[in-house]
Amino acid sequence: MRVVVSIGGSVLAPNLDARRVEDHAAVVETLAEAGYDIAAVVGGGGVARDYIGTARDLGANEVQLDQIGIDVTRINARLLIAALGSRVDPKVARDYEDAGDAVRRGDISIMGGIMPGQTTDAVAAALAEYVDADLLVYATSVDGVYDADPSSQDEAQKYTQLLPTELVDVVAPMSRDAGASAPVDLLAAKLIQRAGMRTIVLDGADPQHIESAVLDGEHNGTDIIP
Amino acid sequence: MRVVVSIGGSVLAPNLDARRVEDHAAVVETLAEAGYDIAAVVGGGGVARDYIGTARDLGANEVQLDQIGIDVTRINARLLIAALGSRVDPKVARDYEDAGDAVRRGDISIMGGIMPGQTTDAVAAALAEYVDADLLVYATSVDGVYDADPSSQDEAQKYTQLLPTELVDVVAPMSRDAGASAPVDLLAAKLIQRAGMRTIVLDGADPQHIESAVLDGEHNGTDIIP
Amino acid sequence: MRVVVSIGGSVLAPNLDARRVEDHAAVVETLAEAGYDIAAVVGGGGVARDYIGTARDLGANEVQLDQIGIDVTRINARLLIAALGSRVDPKVARDYEDAGDAVRRGDISIMGGIMPGQTTDAVAAALAEYVDADLLVYATSVDGVYDADPSSQDEAQKYTQLLPTELVDVVAPMSRDAGASAPVDLLAAKLIQRAGMRTIVLDGADPQHIESAVLDGEHNGTDIIP
Amino acid sequence: MRVVVSIGGSVLAPNLDARRVEDHAAVVETLAEAGYDIAAVVGGGGVARDYIGTARDLGANEVQLDQIGIDVTRINARLLIAALGSRVDPKVARDYEDAGDAVRRGDISIMGGIMPGQTTDAVAAALAEYVDADLLVYATSVDGVYDADPSSQDEAQKYTQLLPTELVDVVAPMSRDAGASAPVDLLAAKLIQRAGMRTIVLDGADPQHIESAVLDGEHNGTDIIP
Amino acid sequence: MRVVVSIGGSVLAPNLDARRVEDHAAVVETLAEAGYDIAAVVGGGGVARDYIGTARDLGANEVQLDQIGIDVTRINARLLIAALGSRVDPKVARDYEDAGDAVRRGDISIMGGIMPGQTTDAVAAALAEYVDADLLVYATSVDGVYDADPSSQDEAQKYTQLLPTELVDVVAPMSRDAGASAPVDLLAAKLIQRAGMRTIVLDGADPQHIESAVLDGEHNGTDIIP
Amino acid sequence: MRVVVSIGGSVLAPNLDARRVEDHAAVVETLAEAGYDIAAVVGGGGVARDYIGTARDLGANEVQLDQIGIDVTRINARLLIAALGSRVDPKVARDYEDAGDAVRRGDISIMGGIMPGQTTDAVAAALAEYVDADLLVYATSVDGVYDADPSSQDEAQKYTQLLPTELVDVVAPMSRDAGASAPVDLLAAKLIQRAGMRTIVLDGADPQHIESAVLDGEHNGTDIIP
Repeated sequence: MRVVVSIGGSVLAPNLDARRVEDHAAVVETLAEAGYDIAAVVGGGGVARDYIGTARDLGANEVQLDQIGIDVTRINARLLIAALGSRVDPKVARDYEDAGDAVRRGDISIMGGIMPGQTTDAVAAALAEYVDADLLVYATSVDGVYDADPSSQDEAQKYTQLLPTELVDVVAPMSRDAGASAPVDLLAAKLIQRAGMRTIVLDGADPQHIESAVLDGEHNGTDIIP
Repeated sequence: MRVVVSIGGSVLAPNLDARRVEDHAAVVETLAEAGYDIAAVVGGGGVARDYIGTARDLGANEVQLDQIGIDVTRINARLLIAALGSRVDPKVARDYEDAGDAVRRGDISIMGGIMPGQTTDAVAAALAEYVDADLLVYATSVDGVYDADPSSQDEAQKYTQLLPTELVDVVAPMSRDAGASAPVDLLAAKLIQRAGMRTIVLDGADPQHIESAVLDGEHNGTDIIP
Repeated sequence: MRVVVSIGGSVLAPNLDARRVEDHAAVVETLAEAGYDIAAVVGGGGVARDYIGTARDLGANEVQLDQIGIDVTRINARLLIAALGSRVDPKVARDYEDAGDAVRRGDISIMGGIMPGQTTDAVAAALAEYVDADLLVYATSVDGVYDADPSSQDEAQKYTQLLPTELVDVVAPMSRDAGASAPVDLLAAKLIQRAGMRTIVLDGADPQHIESAVLDGEHNGTDIIP
Repeated sequence: MRVVVSIGGSVLAPNLDARRVEDHAAVVETLAEAGYDIAAVVGGGGVARDYIGTARDLGANEVQLDQIGIDVTRINARLLIAALGSRVDPKVARDYEDAGDAVRRGDISIMGGIMPGQTTDAVAAALAEYVDADLLVYATSVDGVYDADPSSQDEAQKYTQLLPTELVDVVAPMSRDAGASAPVDLLAAKLIQRAGMRTIVLDGADPQHIESAVLDGEHNGTDIIP
Repeated sequence: MRVVVSIGGSVLAPNLDARRVEDHAAVVETLAEAGYDIAAVVGGGGVARDYIGTARDLGANEVQLDQIGIDVTRINARLLIAALGSRVDPKVARDYEDAGDAVRRGDISIMGGIMPGQTTDAVAAALAEYVDADLLVYATSVDGVYDADPSSQDEAQKYTQLLPTELVDVVAPMSRDAGASAPVDLLAAKLIQRAGMRTIVLDGADPQHIESAVLDGEHNGTDIIP
Repeated sequence: MRVVVSIGGSVLAPNLDARRVEDHAAVVETLAEAGYDIAAVVGGGGVARDYIGTARDLGANEVQLDQIGIDVTRINARLLIAALGSRVDPKVARDYEDAGDAVRRGDISIMGGIMPGQTTDAVAAALAEYVDADLLVYATSVDGVYDADPSSQDEAQKYTQLLPTELVDVVAPMSRDAGASAPVDLLAAKLIQRAGMRTIVLDGADPQHIESAVLDGEHNGTDIIP
């Protein structure tokens, strides 16, 4: 079975902390040892946010900001690689073919962002599609998909299960305003819909949630089932 | 003044026809001679559609289909380059930095798609942002942004003018169904919104429309004005 | 045993047809399952011809035409890859080292053209030499090497067997006139001669001919035996 | 006149602060406007230190740590580029040829580290040699070359002037112990000696020091004069 | 006017000698100063021959031998670049687009071989075609095109003038035998024919011959006139 | 067990001689067959010296000279690859990640120099660190580390054993003067010290010395033991 895990920057590296990275690496290794083909896509986290803020103050345009963000995700990918054993491809994958080839050969593949205009959410969805993954897991800072932003709206309700099309419908208005934060961005949702990809959105603060979700199908997040 | 023109595949190469490519090249050269910095992003057209159909029959996944589409857009870019004179960068730009560097040096830069998961619509918007373009023109097969698909709904009304946010609102539901065809895709709309980019969507079947829109501000399409 | 198959564009993709590509893929897989190391080099076919015609009308020079042709061969390579199972290297090989490395690792490697000035015929011969192939098969639109162009000269006689040097002698005058079409071009013939490579030229319209030739040594084409 | 400036990470980005980067950019632009050819090599600073510490805790080896450090220097280079106007090459130079080519064309070139095992100090010295610079300036966190570590030894004396060979002699023992910090590392010193390169080591906390040193030859640091 | 000069390895570097390289560089500079756009393609010479002999003894195949030969031509290109002033592109061009782009910007471009299976003769012909050169000059170790090998046959007659088609006819039989050495190889001759390229083959031992041929049209070699 | 062997240019190719290369290849293969993971870094030798001398006469700067030297080391790497069987990675590794990845997959990896400013001595030390080698062997033209240059000073004493720190202390003054030749350069010594790498410096003129040292721990050189 083949799994792509998207580890949000706010989950892997809200700030730099070897312990957190180690914990995530341990889960990835557990899954690999259990026989899963694994690829992980990691986000930018706190360092990305700081760099992007500084660059914006310096007048960088949005594409330049994206490029800086991508660079940081790749350093985070290096951290995760450093924490993984000999089964990981020691190179950060730079496109879907690199990652797919590593997975095909039985390696764990780690990548960050690829191109301005695409979040690592979208990269994870496209990679899942490219490697014909059986499951895509988003380990995010919220514990599932809500009908409103749970951080600002008390009455926000979490979905237990959604169709991919419903995910797009839920995410589209959220992603329209800069302020609101969808747990998975709209492009990612559309790629999930396009591929009919089985997806789980869960709280990644504790990486054990990823392990339980993949190994036992148990989690408190949202299941997107085509 | 700096302009990015997105020439849809259905506009540049619905099928292969040197005359059409020449006409578009002539407009690009006219604009360059009039002192505009110009970059153009071209789509895939009929050949892309045929290849993608064949590849889909062969079991290619969506990312592989995107890669094939990107390859075709780059060949179309070569056609446009062949039709342009000595001011064009003879290399098809493969990322925003290549294109931006060519424009900065005074060359006309031509590019196609870049990465799976992004249409050439989105590439054009990101490039416009990257080079700090004053204007982004979408030369498409419809003559503007409508409130419904004009090819299937008689009562569809064309917008004369939209805010970027309104463009996102209009385009979002259209892009939700595979059948419907937004004149500009949702990721592009969101990039336009993010950058607050002055944009025109017009009928590119006759490339003179592009010329008039840029030189004189005259066109029958839709103005997106931040 | 190691085999390089050159699948002419007019054989793989005279026009785009998934069935034809599938049939060729099936033969490649059969050979791989029978224990052969396989690499295939594919040509451009009808789409290449159309693009090159259009680009010539636009004033492209011969090197630019070659580049467009190479791009199309690589898309055709993607089609063949899409039709092949998990043993194929999912990347189109871009030089001999990539292809050789894939073959060395036990993958099927697919490539198209490489560089202006060289046909895929010549690429196949050089690749066969590079991977120390035991056999090189040209699946072409004619059913062997003739002493004259069989499409225009009724009395043209097919050679059953040739020495590599004789192949060069036969092919050299044919390739002098633009009109005439040698089944294998002169540079390829000279590379075959240089390497002393066992080669078969056969009618590839039916891919079963390739299978029979490799597995059983049976074919109606021309044997080039050093 | 051609100048290479090495801006230490602790000088450009002890922590992320747009103001500091802007001030350095302003000096680079002033020098460029005064007619100097300028290339700058930037270090890693606080973010590099944090990432390297985390990666070391994760078991990364020294080469992996270097790679992470290089990645951070390149993001810092992006910051400086964002702060510079249109004369800067918008791509971070990745080798001496890229940087040299940009300088030759009249662009300001910015680069970070290149390869594990070499500090940005050494990169700056090699780049200065490659572009035949007339002057190499090290803007560091100490205000010159001392005969001992001034942060720990009160009686440390600053050199006003040194021969390149003397610089090597001074720096060699300092760089032997991990604890001690030479203002310029040993490989850099040896490259300066090899090239006979006119060099100034000065306190870069205030970027005006760089400006005065280049424009007027006035500074409180150490002159290395061949 | 635009000129491509092919400087044979036996002419530039029969053995390593700075004086010879300088003399060729001086001619290239003279032509550039006289207003010509210049690109030069250099061969491998004595070092290539020695390396190829050693590699053949070690069991390298012909493609590997070609790769070694190409590497040596690129080092020779570096020598010529080192001997040229600031107008030369300091990077050895690695494909036609790099070289063409440099020439288009007014730089002198130097390249060696590109791909196994193609001599630098053929590279020069393709480059001349790509940059729409007005003249292609082969500076070789013989003083023109003969009807037989002048080194072994006393009665060999030099052609003063040939049509491109005649060049192909003359060269084809020569290139059939490994022993014989055509002054220009068959693939190059065919590319010259394809492009209808004005070409001169002359004795390059004295680089002044190149200068006279280009500046004054005076030489003792063979004119190929389409 | 994992071993990196640095084969000095003066040891592998004082001049071009297939026999010498074969003998070194035989030792590498013996070690691989004995179960060792092997990577080798080769130097430039006589051809590098000749080319660098010529380029210096032509006015090349030190970085350009380094680049030429690196190119030659890579050709030497091709020779060694040609002499090795099917277990060698047929591509010359161009960075530590390439080499490390090849070793991780069980291939023998061969590389030359990487970047100006670093000798192949330093490359070997960094590679050993990167692949977590158990042993680093320098096969040089002297038979160990001496307290003075044995070629000029009769009383020079060879060290049987050194700490890495002592190696740095011994090598530092030697490397200060251009004339003196340390058996291992200073940057390499510092990398060995940084990594605490078990290292042997021995006379590589007879490659059997390498075999005995690795297989049996027997040699007449110097042991550097952390």
